[in-house]
Amino acid sequence: MAADRPGEFELIKTYFAPLAKDPGSLGLTDDAAVLTPRAGFDLVLTKDVLAADIHFFADDAPEAIAAKALRVNLSDLAAKGAVPRGYLLGLALPSDWTANWLDRFCKGLAADQAAYDVQLLGGDTIRSGNGLQVSITAIGEVPAGRAVRRSGARPGDKLFLTGTIGDAAAGLKARLDPGFGTKCGLTKSEESHILNRYLLPKPRAKLAGPISEFANAAMDVSDGLVADCGHMAKASGVAVAIDLNKLPLSDALKRLRKVAPDEFTRCLNGGDDYEVLASIPANRAAAFQQASEVVGCPVTKIGSVGEGPGSVDLTEAGAPVEINPNLGFRHF
Amino acid sequence: MAADRPGEFELIKTYFAPLAKDPGSLGLTDDAAVLTPRAGFDLVLTKDVLAADIHFFADDAPEAIAAKALRVNLSDLAAKGAVPRGYLLGLALPSDWTANWLDRFCKGLAADQAAYDVQLLGGDTIRSGNGLQVSITAIGEVPAGRAVRRSGARPGDKLFLTGTIGDAAAGLKARLDPGFGTKCGLTKSEESHILNRYLLPKPRAKLAGPISEFANAAMDVSDGLVADCGHMAKASGVAVAIDLNKLPLSDALKRLRKVAPDEFTRCLNGGDDYEVLASIPANRAAAFQQASEVVGCPVTKIGSVGEGPGSVDLTEAGAPVEINPNLGFRHF
Repeated sequence: MAADRPGEFELIKTYFAPLAKDPGSLGLTDDAAVLTPRAGFDLVLTKDVLAADIHFFADDAPEAIAAKALRVNLSDLAAKGAVPRGYLLGLALPSDWTANWLDRFCKGLAADQAAYDVQLLGGDTIRSGNGLQVSITAIGEVPAGRAVRRSGARPGDKLFLTGTIGDAAAGLKARLDPGFGTKCGLTKSEESHILNRYLLPKPRAKLAGPISEFANAAMDVSDGLVADCGHMAKASGVAVAIDLNKLPLSDALKRLRKVAPDEFTRCLNGGDDYEVLASIPANRAAAFQQASEVVGCPVTKIGSVGEGPGSVDLTEAGAPVEINPNLGFRHF
Repeated sequence: MAADRPGEFELIKTYFAPLAKDPGSLGLTDDAAVLTPRAGFDLVLTKDVLAADIHFFADDAPEAIAAKALRVNLSDLAAKGAVPRGYLLGLALPSDWTANWLDRFCKGLAADQAAYDVQLLGGDTIRSGNGLQVSITAIGEVPAGRAVRRSGARPGDKLFLTGTIGDAAAGLKARLDPGFGTKCGLTKSEESHILNRYLLPKPRAKLAGPISEFANAAMDVSDGLVADCGHMAKASGVAVAIDLNKLPLSDALKRLRKVAPDEFTRCLNGGDDYEVLASIPANRAAAFQQASEVVGCPVTKIGSVGEGPGSVDLTEAGAPVEINPNLGFRHF
């Protein structure tokens, strides 16, 4: 609608054009971006929409909101083995947006563009009828035919995971309940760690190369480890076996496991980890692990893939563990 | 956030997967889509976000909301000379969405996918904190180096326009004021025509080929004809001259011009036309016009391009016409 456009042109010039240095963005002066694909590469496209008070808190730092909106998309690209090429930003601003807020939001984007070597290509800014919404479409490239899917896990594969798991879900609990850290005996530094892990996912962009080179299947873990292992198992038509004692845990989650085991299992099955789960042929597992070290994104072996009907089998010290959908896990 | 995901998987399977027949969509079973670019083609990317009660009315038919959200993006592609390849859909559903509403929304997408030969590649569905928002990223392809920009208009070019102009702005007026048609002496059929033109833009997808082949510059007219001619003139560093008597007008707008000239000028300067404005070298103008007829998307010559400082000069029967920003145009 025309009425909000003059404002939009000013916004573009002041805030967004400085983020758009890729020639294909045409400096955001046109209706569309132009992307010349590199010969021998496929493009990977992903889109996530984040809304205030659903995916982030409206009073989060604007830099953090911007970073999260971009990073959840970069996480998808990395898990497909794709290197970011650019992104389009759809921004629905609430009526009470301020210049200072938008300036900080764009500073958050600028910092992440530098950190992840990605450029703004285009987008749209509108007045939101209500709260802030951020919709990002990210585009990555991967050697032709090498985009890695969820569905390629094969019996005999070994399962690997980046980073540590459960932190973000614990961070959300701490954010919602200021007494959570004390109740669970977390140190200040541990509480700060989980809060930050919820606020700012770390997309494993560096792992794109090794994923594309070695993985039969991969995906980012955003719905909870067990749920996402289930997605991979079903898509691949295999059984996934996870050893709980091998899961990579931060100090905060190790403490949670001791002090508040129910909270721990809930966190393990919570969302927002944005770590990469990869299924690697057994005879290439060592090479994958080495390549991950080389790019600075170490991985942990957490289980293996077998024949089966799309199931997830959990064990702890050799004993089977049952999943309680209400609690995450439940021990026999 | 994990909480809304189980519902999302059901939504994907029931409503969206049937829209995703392109192999690159991976049946919407993965985190991302994979697109293998065609050798010799560039990709054109565009993104528009539409919000309830800003860009459409919340009680519009769901089919029409879906169609409008897709079509405003297809209009951008056509104006760049690009043929649609696929799109990603970001859908923020209000809490009171119903299965019937979503079913009709997807039927609207399905009908347009067939009409414009485009497929759903991926996307994201979230619960909106408030009203409905639809964010679409569309991807088109154009022969390498032939994406047409706003900035290429050259002195000597002839200016062409598809369809008719001002209808959608008049339709919005009629939608907001049920007495508008009677006040302006419109017939029922004329009123219905303008209402429909506001509700359902017609992207000039068929013109992509001739635009890419012949145009020095092109853009879709969505902010009002004078404003968008100004954008092209500024981007190209030229002066654009428009002859008001040559503008293509529907019967409804012709009547408005006689009965309510102030409303007419406001509508000419209103938005939402989604017609294509193209600047064509004079020696290729006849061939362009012929090619437009051949593809079934005739164009009208409305003016020409000269040397100048990014200005728009309007004439009517040879006499200059001044623009009143509050009214659209104002005669001397």
